[in-house]
Amino acid sequence: MKIVMDAHGGDHAPLEIVKGAALAAKEFDATLVLCGREAEIRAAAKEAGVSLDGMEIAPAEDVIGMEDDPVSILKEHAECSMARGLKMVAEGQGDAFLSAGSTGALVVGSRFFVKNMPGIKRAALAPILPSACGRYILADAGANVECRPDFLVKFAIMGSAYMSGILGVENPRVGLLCNGTEEGKGNKLTQEAYELLKAAPIHFVGNLEAREAPLGGCDVLVTDGFTGNIFLKLSEGMGKMVSNGLKTALKKNPVRLLGAALISGGLKEFKKSLDYKETGGAPLLGLRCPVIKAHGSSDAKAIYNAVRQAVHFVRNDVNGRIETMLQQTEQQEKEKE
Amino acid sequence: MKIVMDAHGGDHAPLEIVKGAALAAKEFDATLVLCGREAEIRAAAKEAGVSLDGMEIAPAEDVIGMEDDPVSILKEHAECSMARGLKMVAEGQGDAFLSAGSTGALVVGSRFFVKNMPGIKRAALAPILPSACGRYILADAGANVECRPDFLVKFAIMGSAYMSGILGVENPRVGLLCNGTEEGKGNKLTQEAYELLKAAPIHFVGNLEAREAPLGGCDVLVTDGFTGNIFLKLSEGMGKMVSNGLKTALKKNPVRLLGAALISGGLKEFKKSLDYKETGGAPLLGLRCPVIKAHGSSDAKAIYNAVRQAVHFVRNDVNGRIETMLQQTEQQEKEKE
Repeated sequence: MKIVMDAHGGDHAPLEIVKGAALAAKEFDATLVLCGREAEIRAAAKEAGVSLDGMEIAPAEDVIGMEDDPVSILKEHAECSMARGLKMVAEGQGDAFLSAGSTGALVVGSRFFVKNMPGIKRAALAPILPSACGRYILADAGANVECRPDFLVKFAIMGSAYMSGILGVENPRVGLLCNGTEEGKGNKLTQEAYELLKAAPIHFVGNLEAREAPLGGCDVLVTDGFTGNIFLKLSEGMGKMVSNGLKTALKKNPVRLLGAALISGGLKEFKKSLDYKETGGAPLLGLRCPVIKAHGSSDAKAIYNAVRQAVHFVRNDVNGRIETMLQQTEQQEKEKE
Repeated sequence: MKIVMDAHGGDHAPLEIVKGAALAAKEFDATLVLCGREAEIRAAAKEAGVSLDGMEIAPAEDVIGMEDDPVSILKEHAECSMARGLKMVAEGQGDAFLSAGSTGALVVGSRFFVKNMPGIKRAALAPILPSACGRYILADAGANVECRPDFLVKFAIMGSAYMSGILGVENPRVGLLCNGTEEGKGNKLTQEAYELLKAAPIHFVGNLEAREAPLGGCDVLVTDGFTGNIFLKLSEGMGKMVSNGLKTALKKNPVRLLGAALISGGLKEFKKSLDYKETGGAPLLGLRCPVIKAHGSSDAKAIYNAVRQAVHFVRNDVNGRIETMLQQTEQQEKEKE
């Protein structure tokens, strides 16, 4: 198996990418390919004191930045490290690709270079989020701002395939993000999607209020990319607000400082349970090859986890599972006719 | 000043409503009117050991429940305690109304009985949320699932009037909830609203990502009621998940239990900073008279705070401020023509 990596995306590239790759190379039975500026990659490896033995470098001199127009990956930046990696997996020179770079560029580049699976009109950005009793996948978190109801059904199928294939959740519960639980609630999009989801070969549990998702109300949370992006970003913002607020409250006097020292293990566990770095990245579901978006602020550990996620995606054939479910849907539709 | 209260809405009615009213009656220069079943109200006062002296009771035997269709407040439940209170303020027998009952019924009842201010097509449910550096108002949090761009401009104006009038925020920063900060981001609604907001007599700071709001990125967060409801409910759900998770982590062993005891003051302060009970309720902005929706799980303190909020709403003439800003907008539009 060959996992292709963008050496340059993210806030701490290439150093943390290279360190993460070195950690992953030891652990997983996969060849890692680093796309990017060879000199910088080698310098980063030297700085980190890690070996690139067994890894490959796919040279690319250009890098697409966060400030660049995502569409420029098709034109001015068509030879950047991200584009190079996407083209490699598209051409069969790798089994999966991961990048911590611009989400927009990765979405556009994936659509254009890697292309969608047959039967999928829109790939979904699908981060894995922590809940009170495990994890759930959110689709779509921002790849498709405007959605049609049938897109949401595909998101539900793809999310279910991921949760069962990678996280071993049997018969994942799919919830439709809505402003109320009753059937008939919601806007035009969710009302129409509700009807389609009821008929799809998934375990649909109905409309779900946003409050229930972090409390463990579903395994797959389906929504359009606009709402999903707001959901994802608010989760992050709330996490940060809480962690900052707690820090301030605990530093106020010596008694609290002592108390804080005694509970530091607990606080760490708690923070870990909320940490995106533990979950790896957000897969782009619905592409011909697995593409993983690692968080922009990924450190070596987050990159290591994203590689693990890519390996599992390939090994557990998530795309095969999606295909099977799509065929079931088609079959159902034919039988109805 | 006369504040009319629904004695029966919410999980802890009428006991906590009556207790909250008794606390508020001592503090504020306002007559409180409790709408509902007189016998139950008097029994609650007796149980709580509080006096109803100086308060009035407006009898209403019927109560609209959470499970009732909101629209039934216009028909089967047109004589319920909530409807009675709304009609009283509509008829000038009170200056503001508050209820901890069904949000849907309150929205429908307010629209029908109290009616919108001239120039306002849609009233907005506008809760006050805690941020890392204070508070911000969210409009709309669910009164209008489908919105037009011009509704969002009115939400911005009303939210600004509230934040300056009640919370003393000078020149409140209005952010448009969006999936990215750049102009041109967003869905059709936000893209069109963006242009209108730029021209409105408010301090528009542009598109705002959901993560920035709890970190203090704006004073007024504007969005449609579908997205706003998801935003509000996720804030609540994340708060609960965090608080539960923390509790579990801190109870794991005796050392942590000791530590937790030492920081209990800090934890309380921290929780208080996140607590909706401290902020009062969510005003329904854009009505001819102030209507406040208290949280369904309100205790006496939350009710007390909601009364305070109603008193300030009247005293600081928030509706007058909204009118002035609406006139400015009209003036601007005329000048353009």
